Amino acid sequence: MSREESPLAVQFSAAPERVPYEAPAPEPEQPADGVDSDGPPEEDVSSKPPQRQRPAGGRPRDPRVDRAIRDAATQIYAEEGWAGFQFDAIAKRAGVGKSAVYRRWATREDLVIEAIRGMDTAAVVGDAATLREALTRIAREQLEWWGDTPGAAYLRLQMDQVKLPALGDLYSTRVRGPLLDVVRGMVGKAVASGEVPPGTSTTLLVEMLSGAMMMRMGSSSRANRQKLVDNPDEYIALLVDYVLAAATAGGKRR
Amino acid sequence: MSREESPLAVQFSAAPERVPYEAPAPEPEQPADGVDSDGPPEEDVSSKPPQRQRPAGGRPRDPRVDRAIRDAATQIYAEEGWAGFQFDAIAKRAGVGKSAVYRRWATREDLVIEAIRGMDTAAVVGDAATLREALTRIAREQLEWWGDTPGAAYLRLQMDQVKLPALGDLYSTRVRGPLLDVVRGMVGKAVASGEVPPGTSTTLLVEMLSGAMMMRMGSSSRANRQKLVDNPDEYIALLVDYVLAAATAGGKRR
Repeated sequence: MSREESPLAVQFSAAPERVPYEAPAPEPEQPADGVDSDGPPEEDVSSKPPQRQRPAGGRPRDPRVDRAIRDAATQIYAEEGWAGFQFDAIAKRAGVGKSAVYRRWATREDLVIEAIRGMDTAAVVGDAATLREALTRIAREQLEWWGDTPGAAYLRLQMDQVKLPALGDLYSTRVRGPLLDVVRGMVGKAVASGEVPPGTSTTLLVEMLSGAMMMRMGSSSRANRQKLVDNPDEYIALLVDYVLAAATAGGKRR
Repeated sequence: MSREESPLAVQFSAAPERVPYEAPAPEPEQPADGVDSDGPPEEDVSSKPPQRQRPAGGRPRDPRVDRAIRDAATQIYAEEGWAGFQFDAIAKRAGVGKSAVYRRWATREDLVIEAIRGMDTAAVVGDAATLREALTRIAREQLEWWGDTPGAAYLRLQMDQVKLPALGDLYSTRVRGPLLDVVRGMVGKAVASGEVPPGTSTTLLVEMLSGAMMMRMGSSSRANRQKLVDNPDEYIALLVDYVLAAATAGGKRR
């Protein structure tokens, strides 16, 4: 992915090699990983009859207005969190009247859920031959992500789930779950090829890789974030070295 | 530290072995770590004449009211972030009139800065003999911290610094800086004793350890967070194993 395509200030856009997420059959491992299993099962909003979105007999919605409102909603949520996620601020950012928002979404919760669901979150896999190559690709993608609107929005989800558990469910099903699934598959292959030992913890690897990048980006000034995104090679090589060393030695000790 | 003393819902309290932070002489390393060096130099608010806090000729402030407002401010900030950090919500939570807040703090920014400065953030060191022991102690402390009010407040600082750079400076000087200083000292000793190789990156170790715990706590339900805080031994032993393995192998490769 070329750096020029994704400056920090711009909404994250899908790359061609991105793989859409399909939820696998539930595994007993998930609750042990600390993922909330108390919440309601995931619903696919897009397959529900659009009762609120298009009143019976109404005109079809203008998709450009929909998109503008969803983009504005994602940005406002990333910047302000739930406390600042207000219809008037969103309408103003989208350049539409407040009634255009109310007509489409009955509640703030409906809108934030639909906006977040519309963001692309699946991990890059491509044709990575080794776990090292795969982790390097994921790190590259996530480094930008954590400094940009989607990363900020998902961090807000983590924090706001105390107030609104549905936001925590979004985080689990849209970000954490897909990423863990992808890496679990790769760790399985790496165990089979002898790249890492049996017993390597997928969850710890992902948390170390992703958490370290999140903290680096979160604690850097805007200028330093941009420098890192423009020249990520040295940092990412060292981080992946460290994480793979952890997998190799840590897995053996179990 | 006994688990019973610090249930998740309660404000984090200082343990006796906690070491107060004293800022060391500035090092050239800090900007290279991605810490914002553009902000104004740190001021010690507590040593400034209390111009705003006590008008000339006014009665001395009641320290209980001060404390109630500061505690309420920290909680509201942790729960809502900057967007929801409003004087009326803080006064209500503290059980005082809004004028009691205005009389003490002229702006929301003054109040958030003083409230955050009042929170204890220095890392536990004690008499740890090895880097493993030291990282285990830090991990124990931080595991609670990330699931509690101060952790949430500091995560909000990271996010809100885009809007208000002073909040990013607080994060650097009150959380990240002290922790990096403590671990840097310990890594230095561990290099001298041969526990880890020369060239081990303090910053990466801290980011992997702290970031991994932050993600684990942030993505867990309240019940699972509590389980982890009540029985942290197995998780922390594995995480420290992984992080030390990274240090040992990753450092050598540089």
